[in-house]
Amino acid sequence: MTAAPLARRAAAEFLGTGLLVTVVVGSGIAAETLTRDPGLRLLENALATAAGLAVLILVFGPVSGGHFNPVISLADWWLGRRDSTGLGAAAFTAYVPAQVGGAIAGAVLANAMYDEPLVAWSDHQRSGGGVWLGEIVATAGLLLVVVALARSGRAGHTAWAVGAYIGSAYWFTSSTSFANPAVTVGRAVTDTFAGIAPGSVGGFVLAQLLGGVLGVALSAVLYPRTGADVDDLVIPQYDVPTERH
Amino acid sequence: MTAAPLARRAAAEFLGTGLLVTVVVGSGIAAETLTRDPGLRLLENALATAAGLAVLILVFGPVSGGHFNPVISLADWWLGRRDSTGLGAAAFTAYVPAQVGGAIAGAVLANAMYDEPLVAWSDHQRSGGGVWLGEIVATAGLLLVVVALARSGRAGHTAWAVGAYIGSAYWFTSSTSFANPAVTVGRAVTDTFAGIAPGSVGGFVLAQLLGGVLGVALSAVLYPRTGADVDDLVIPQYDVPTERH
Amino acid sequence: MTAAPLARRAAAEFLGTGLLVTVVVGSGIAAETLTRDPGLRLLENALATAAGLAVLILVFGPVSGGHFNPVISLADWWLGRRDSTGLGAAAFTAYVPAQVGGAIAGAVLANAMYDEPLVAWSDHQRSGGGVWLGEIVATAGLLLVVVALARSGRAGHTAWAVGAYIGSAYWFTSSTSFANPAVTVGRAVTDTFAGIAPGSVGGFVLAQLLGGVLGVALSAVLYPRTGADVDDLVIPQYDVPTERH
Amino acid sequence: MTAAPLARRAAAEFLGTGLLVTVVVGSGIAAETLTRDPGLRLLENALATAAGLAVLILVFGPVSGGHFNPVISLADWWLGRRDSTGLGAAAFTAYVPAQVGGAIAGAVLANAMYDEPLVAWSDHQRSGGGVWLGEIVATAGLLLVVVALARSGRAGHTAWAVGAYIGSAYWFTSSTSFANPAVTVGRAVTDTFAGIAPGSVGGFVLAQLLGGVLGVALSAVLYPRTGADVDDLVIPQYDVPTERH
Repeated sequence: MTAAPLARRAAAEFLGTGLLVTVVVGSGIAAETLTRDPGLRLLENALATAAGLAVLILVFGPVSGGHFNPVISLADWWLGRRDSTGLGAAAFTAYVPAQVGGAIAGAVLANAMYDEPLVAWSDHQRSGGGVWLGEIVATAGLLLVVVALARSGRAGHTAWAVGAYIGSAYWFTSSTSFANPAVTVGRAVTDTFAGIAPGSVGGFVLAQLLGGVLGVALSAVLYPRTGADVDDLVIPQYDVPTERH
Repeated sequence: MTAAPLARRAAAEFLGTGLLVTVVVGSGIAAETLTRDPGLRLLENALATAAGLAVLILVFGPVSGGHFNPVISLADWWLGRRDSTGLGAAAFTAYVPAQVGGAIAGAVLANAMYDEPLVAWSDHQRSGGGVWLGEIVATAGLLLVVVALARSGRAGHTAWAVGAYIGSAYWFTSSTSFANPAVTVGRAVTDTFAGIAPGSVGGFVLAQLLGGVLGVALSAVLYPRTGADVDDLVIPQYDVPTERH
Repeated sequence: MTAAPLARRAAAEFLGTGLLVTVVVGSGIAAETLTRDPGLRLLENALATAAGLAVLILVFGPVSGGHFNPVISLADWWLGRRDSTGLGAAAFTAYVPAQVGGAIAGAVLANAMYDEPLVAWSDHQRSGGGVWLGEIVATAGLLLVVVALARSGRAGHTAWAVGAYIGSAYWFTSSTSFANPAVTVGRAVTDTFAGIAPGSVGGFVLAQLLGGVLGVALSAVLYPRTGADVDDLVIPQYDVPTERH
Repeated sequence: MTAAPLARRAAAEFLGTGLLVTVVVGSGIAAETLTRDPGLRLLENALATAAGLAVLILVFGPVSGGHFNPVISLADWWLGRRDSTGLGAAAFTAYVPAQVGGAIAGAVLANAMYDEPLVAWSDHQRSGGGVWLGEIVATAGLLLVVVALARSGRAGHTAWAVGAYIGSAYWFTSSTSFANPAVTVGRAVTDTFAGIAPGSVGGFVLAQLLGGVLGVALSAVLYPRTGADVDDLVIPQYDVPTERH
């Protein structure tokens, strides 16, 4: 089968990452408005994100792989670089701007739905050693989930597993598990529950990259390559209808 | 295999849409009665709706497609109109009244179970630009889920994915995601938690139709037609026992 | 393949129904002890029951069908009576006492874990037209789920669908959806959150039987028999290792 | 297919058990910090644990079986001892220290993320007849789930079923269902929500062993051996890429 044209794949990454940020920010605003207990707010935000993320991977996975995350795209390129499986360099350079642009657009959409200023810097400081460690753990775990399922031929579980993982990691990591540089940037432009102050973005992204390296390293130990085609991350593009040329 | 007779399919749409509204309205009444925190009420309502909707699609899908929603039936007709797949015009004109009638009956049933007046106009005003935008987003996303899964040959995921999507969209959209004209009408006849004032119905339905068009357009970009049979929306009627003629 | 011996099937019904009541009563006691908001108590109880019930059907389904419910056993017998599929009369008369005995034992076990009196009549009155209507709806819906999935060849979904259905029905029915005469009897012997006063048991059981008849009738309309083997309810006994004779 | 080398399998048990304890302890700290209602804290902890545990079994299952639990490893050895299926004695003696060491490391990691002392004895006393009975029930049920699914050829359900089971058992057992000696030891070194006083560990472990024996006995009654290969517990190692020698 043929992969979808790059423009369509990039559009899927733009839309998917955008809607993911809409889910995170929008449900955060609703939780903050409707609920008093801070833990219950986080629970509402986590459940909406877990369910929404799983569905978005199901919807966009066959088109673009459903990465929505520069760290996953980077890992996909790295793991497949030797035998030209995985994401090519051209695709990688198209995916990342689509993800970041989509994330910002998704935050703007959430702000618009809730009559918040369309763009507003968050003043929610998120930093410190414990929090950065949380973000390393969160991202390493995410990569482990994605690579393990792909390399063991069980990518059909990926969408629900990634949703469940992130829903859990909202709670077990001290950073509430952003685990995604594009989403982190998008969350900087909303001054609401899920926001992150621009000054905290750099530390988060650095921790996410470290976590990504750790996650890929752990995956390589647990699921070493064997020559079998265990390449494209997340959803193999098995069923994509493509245009005839 | 043969589709079920139209009368039986319409009966399935009547029952399914009806029970969906019973789930939404009934769980809303229970939440309002038992819980104080407004966010927790919405969480209870959202979880009951997500689980109930998934099960209803599983139950009625093989008979009628499990639409329960005029916007989905309209999209099914539109997407299959060229090659006579999808819903025919006769079926469409049977489905929509069944859905609307079922929705009203379902609200009456919920009112009856909770000893509320069987029919009472809601006085819950729901309007404004942000809310209508929410309803556009909610409906576009719903169509995207349904069409993407059908066109990529993964309709086996549709029931759980639609349940998860709506549960999430209760939170991330500012309108709590009605996303369904029939259900909107049904929710007008109960003066309880999930109700909507009759004067707000028109704006919601218009927004839902716009969202439906947007969702179909996005789906067509992401999953263009290829001539393969990727037609009937939601649950393909693969396993339906049909009467012999 | 051969069905398991009747004694083992009855043991599975005893254990499964017992553990189901342990889940319902035990989680109810924990919720009542730990939480103040009545709706949050019900949510905790509903989530524990939904997850626990799904798992119990997975565990015991291949041995006995995972009925845990005289109304389901009755429907299984009735629907298969003409062509000797479904539950035989001998099995039916073994299943029901196992279910009722298990339910009582399960309540005793929950009481014991929480240092409650091992047997205590509940003083929780549950009656009235709205509540009985709720119980009719709850049981009709349960039968519809079970029969529809069996007759459309999708019994692999039954365990999770029944769990999700009951979790939802805790909320959308006014009776909190007992939907099971054996469980109703078991819940009479615990004076805790999930209890039901002995004087309310009769009305509930009657409503459940009416709901069962309604559910079977609706199923027969939606999924008429076709001569294909669409018989044993819940989990087909496809994979059961049986002793060699 | 060949099993992964023992060192890699033990590493998977170390990592998996460690991350499981990180999930339990970390989400407990977050719940305690953010939420006031004790039941809501337990709900947050239970949902994070259920989702996280399911994902960890998916991730590590193909490498090591995803036991994370000495009682499961013991049962795997015992059930397969006659015909050399299941865990060998050498593997068993590698698994248990990996699990216990991982559990302690996982608690330290959670403490570190939340800026708690890296190691601190819990002062949370957990003992008494009702609580020990709870732990017996919790562990017996866990073994029943794992063995029943393996012996009926449905190990593909195991990850989600075990997650759902433990999430439910947090609520229906009076002990909040530790059900795992390694995790119990790990939870002794954190003085936070999920901790257990060192003096309570012995009673819990004893109850877990009794529960394990009971669970295996019940499984053997319900799913007697038939000579078919129904051996390795949890996730059969069906898809593991292994190194070539």
